[in-house]
Amino acid sequence: MQESQKKERPLVLISNDDGYQAKGIHTLTDTLRSMADIIVCAPDSARSGSACAFSATSPLRLQLIEQQEGLQVWSCTGTPVDCVKIALSELCDRKPDMIIGGINHGDNASVNTHYSGTMGVTMEGCMKFIPSVAFSLCDYSADADFEPLRPYIADIVGRVLREGLPKGICLNVNFPLAKEFKGVRICRMAVGSWINELSRCRHPRGYDYFWMVGNYRNEEPEAEDTDNWALNHGYVAITPTRMDVTAYEAMDLLNSWHL
Amino acid sequence: MQESQKKERPLVLISNDDGYQAKGIHTLTDTLRSMADIIVCAPDSARSGSACAFSATSPLRLQLIEQQEGLQVWSCTGTPVDCVKIALSELCDRKPDMIIGGINHGDNASVNTHYSGTMGVTMEGCMKFIPSVAFSLCDYSADADFEPLRPYIADIVGRVLREGLPKGICLNVNFPLAKEFKGVRICRMAVGSWINELSRCRHPRGYDYFWMVGNYRNEEPEAEDTDNWALNHGYVAITPTRMDVTAYEAMDLLNSWHL
Repeated sequence: MQESQKKERPLVLISNDDGYQAKGIHTLTDTLRSMADIIVCAPDSARSGSACAFSATSPLRLQLIEQQEGLQVWSCTGTPVDCVKIALSELCDRKPDMIIGGINHGDNASVNTHYSGTMGVTMEGCMKFIPSVAFSLCDYSADADFEPLRPYIADIVGRVLREGLPKGICLNVNFPLAKEFKGVRICRMAVGSWINELSRCRHPRGYDYFWMVGNYRNEEPEAEDTDNWALNHGYVAITPTRMDVTAYEAMDLLNSWHL
Repeated sequence: MQESQKKERPLVLISNDDGYQAKGIHTLTDTLRSMADIIVCAPDSARSGSACAFSATSPLRLQLIEQQEGLQVWSCTGTPVDCVKIALSELCDRKPDMIIGGINHGDNASVNTHYSGTMGVTMEGCMKFIPSVAFSLCDYSADADFEPLRPYIADIVGRVLREGLPKGICLNVNFPLAKEFKGVRICRMAVGSWINELSRCRHPRGYDYFWMVGNYRNEEPEAEDTDNWALNHGYVAITPTRMDVTAYEAMDLLNSWHL
């Protein structure tokens, strides 16, 4: 009995919001294959900006893409969160030891946390009380160089597999665009916002339509304890992230309103 | 100058995730018309479970549905968050004094906070540093009775218009299914989770597909300080909700890992 337990390797469930074919998720899977059995269940195409959205009104389908010893890769027609839910329900023969989102092509620091499908994967894992981590690189290009990330990812995942994470807390790990990193900083979310988000265009048939674009503005560029500062200065930014978004600090004020 | 400032009524931007035709958003608009100028910009059909998703890769269109003195209603092809972003950019002639999501058909308590498009509206408002509130009723039916909510909504919105909200904090207001409410409780998010979320079906052509369904399980039904407890006991639940999801309490632990 003990011997058979020893033989069982950790199970890691991986998803992303760039789709199962993305270079980032391939690098992540390849980095972790020696450490764990892996199930990849990821969207069939890019789902950037999916946040924690799930498919309330449209059906989902699964397709097995690849199966090897210790590795299954599935594509799913849904959102990143759908992928986690369907994998837990239909694909995992045991509860995963970790759920990982990424590696995202593009950063998920500051308010991007709220929009990110990669963080959706991770928050969904957290809501299932499974230790969960998101990895993102500050490079949107399809052939971004993820090689410098590998030892950091192996280190962080190894640590979380051994020690777990506090219940209700997941990690949002962002890597700066660099060949070498200056180190790792434990950070808070910077206060920042997106501006100039809409671009108006004219359809050949004569009506207006809009693309969502925008520029990110860091509201506190000098704050050295933020994820944005760490990334802008060459450090890996790890932001511990809460499932419980209650603003406890506002309760006294609201109670004083006697609504 | 002062006189013209006095004449200007507050501007309230309203969206939802049930679509501009839903009864909930009509009730909300009707309730607030005497208090403020109103711009409604809401999805052209239901977008339940949209969370903070935005349309990164598909174009958006707007359609003017209704225009009266002090009221504009627009439908948008995008998500709830898209609706807020496009309204702020293209429809509002001044910065709104409040952004409101709802009234949602169905509750957005506990972890539903993370999946809710109604909360997406509100979080987006919060990320734009505008006082924002979500209203939801524990009744999914299309013709739910929203009448008992009106005085509470007028009271809460009036208070927020006069006093604002702390920066980075929005309100998630849930109403129980009742003809009369026992009062208002300031709550925290209950710890709960969704189970049995996938339902497998067989397509007539011979392949499997899945619907997202599920049952909510409250992990702490006796906790009187939670939103679930308040709703289950006939109280209106107001949960102050944070934009900054950093888990500050985990920083010492993570620093001790020396990653």
